[in-house]
Amino acid sequence: MSAVDLSLGADASLAPERILRLEHDRVVVLDQRRLPDAAVELECRSAAEVAAAIRVMAVRGAPAIGIAAAYGYALAARRGEDLDEATAILASSRPTAVNLAWALEQMRGWDGDPAERARAIHAEEVDRCRRMAEHAAELFAPGTRALTHCNAGGLATGGFGTAVGALRHAWERALVTHVFVDETRPLLQGARLTAWELETSGVPHTVIADAAAAALMAAGEVDCVVTGADRIAANGDTANKIGTYGLAVLAAHHGLALYVVAPTSTVDLSTPTGAEIPIEERDGSEVTPRFTARNPAFDVTPAGLIAAIVTEAGVHRAPYAASLAREPAPA
Amino acid sequence: MSAVDLSLGADASLAPERILRLEHDRVVVLDQRRLPDAAVELECRSAAEVAAAIRVMAVRGAPAIGIAAAYGYALAARRGEDLDEATAILASSRPTAVNLAWALEQMRGWDGDPAERARAIHAEEVDRCRRMAEHAAELFAPGTRALTHCNAGGLATGGFGTAVGALRHAWERALVTHVFVDETRPLLQGARLTAWELETSGVPHTVIADAAAAALMAAGEVDCVVTGADRIAANGDTANKIGTYGLAVLAAHHGLALYVVAPTSTVDLSTPTGAEIPIEERDGSEVTPRFTARNPAFDVTPAGLIAAIVTEAGVHRAPYAASLAREPAPA
Repeated sequence: MSAVDLSLGADASLAPERILRLEHDRVVVLDQRRLPDAAVELECRSAAEVAAAIRVMAVRGAPAIGIAAAYGYALAARRGEDLDEATAILASSRPTAVNLAWALEQMRGWDGDPAERARAIHAEEVDRCRRMAEHAAELFAPGTRALTHCNAGGLATGGFGTAVGALRHAWERALVTHVFVDETRPLLQGARLTAWELETSGVPHTVIADAAAAALMAAGEVDCVVTGADRIAANGDTANKIGTYGLAVLAAHHGLALYVVAPTSTVDLSTPTGAEIPIEERDGSEVTPRFTARNPAFDVTPAGLIAAIVTEAGVHRAPYAASLAREPAPA
Repeated sequence: MSAVDLSLGADASLAPERILRLEHDRVVVLDQRRLPDAAVELECRSAAEVAAAIRVMAVRGAPAIGIAAAYGYALAARRGEDLDEATAILASSRPTAVNLAWALEQMRGWDGDPAERARAIHAEEVDRCRRMAEHAAELFAPGTRALTHCNAGGLATGGFGTAVGALRHAWERALVTHVFVDETRPLLQGARLTAWELETSGVPHTVIADAAAAALMAAGEVDCVVTGADRIAANGDTANKIGTYGLAVLAAHHGLALYVVAPTSTVDLSTPTGAEIPIEERDGSEVTPRFTARNPAFDVTPAGLIAAIVTEAGVHRAPYAASLAREPAPA
């Protein structure tokens, strides 16, 4: 991988092709580890380099890593790489988000030009986000103050965003008036990426330490919690960034709704419940370089703590199993 | 204030006089902002400089800032400062911990040598910690895996520690076998100070991001939560480091006990409930320097979520009002 420094244009920065794209001999991703301080593009010249960019979280977010894998596969096809090997290395780059496997399945089942299919996957994911946002708008009464966790924004989805897209859309309609942003340790996707996206869009927002969410809820300053998802099991149990489960318990304690906004590419009907979702444990040095640390990257929120799951098809309510099964992942 | 660099001796580093002390013309505090990377002593040559060291959290922890205020008062007396002014500036340095007001009241009510009384307060607080640890031992079944938040260790109390002292004492008796440590954003008192104290003592420990606590509880890896306190109201409502209230809700959801370990100097019978405890809001730049942030330093855990409050007098159980009232702050 090689890196290219760019100036950070606030306006154009979240255009889908700025977040990630396929060029003739490379996949280019905006390095999310460096945002918002610097706009650096990583150029990946093989499937292995794309897998590495996913593993180190230069590109992150369930839909975005699916898109990156699709581009990586298309690059591998163009370069004449062994496609079984390329698929294996891309699929194993991170374990929790199902979008990776889903996107690679799309690519392998496609007879035409792989680049065309990969770009279509990217465009479809962004389009799904727009439809999710329209459906999600029905969840927010005017004046809603929402709390979100991690970054389920345009950076996480290749453009527009799931939870953050829905919140921005609802803010444009005066439904959501303020967004509290969990900083989201250890990698600070909230304080770095979500705050930046909201600032760029003009959405009023306040960053808080993750541990401050409960006090804000107790003070009546938060009306609901809105997050994305990395994998939704057939019964509605949802894996998302570590901390989401705790927010779900806190929301229930305070009588607040937790809404999950995610595309059908994140729904995994082959995983019956959250107990079967593999949870990535990342290196403890991301938490502290000096002492022994545990660093689970995700947790699982039981379906019973989720007030609604919004996909591009509509607003699902519990019980989720039948409703999600009627809406298989798009092919 | 001037700063003096020292080598960090792991053994001697938590001796009470290393944490803070009164010398002839200064109060010397070990700068907790620099630990564990560096051992730097701050020399405060007036009450105002002691107040500044408290405000910037060079010295922190409810009992420790009470002791620092006592030393600051003694220094002011020795220097011939206006003692009303010195009291006012020390008392207003931080609002939430009641130990500050308590210690200054002790100093003002003392007819003898102020230095003698300040040193006695320091010694008494450390002695209270030892007695708390003995009482707390009855709470832990052999093999207990505890979670703690922030730093309620020797650094926070001028020696020995409240919650961390109790956990270390229980570990020496094979009651507690592992301590999970919330890193405690934004200032990382857990990942910097508690982890360092536990490592120095040989207590097995694991640092986690604050938002990972819920997942560990759901996985059955935590048996109870043990914290210190900054102010305990007459009814048992307890202000402590931001995040404690969320842990209390999570503990209740998972059927786990939350124990508060704190000296009677932290009990404030003149504050009826948690609603009357002033909660310090610190600068948002401690959370993120770039975006708008809120930074409440404490939250309030309702007495109903606390399984026991351990003071030097014994283990208090709900309802706390009568029990705490029988045990007024020591004079």
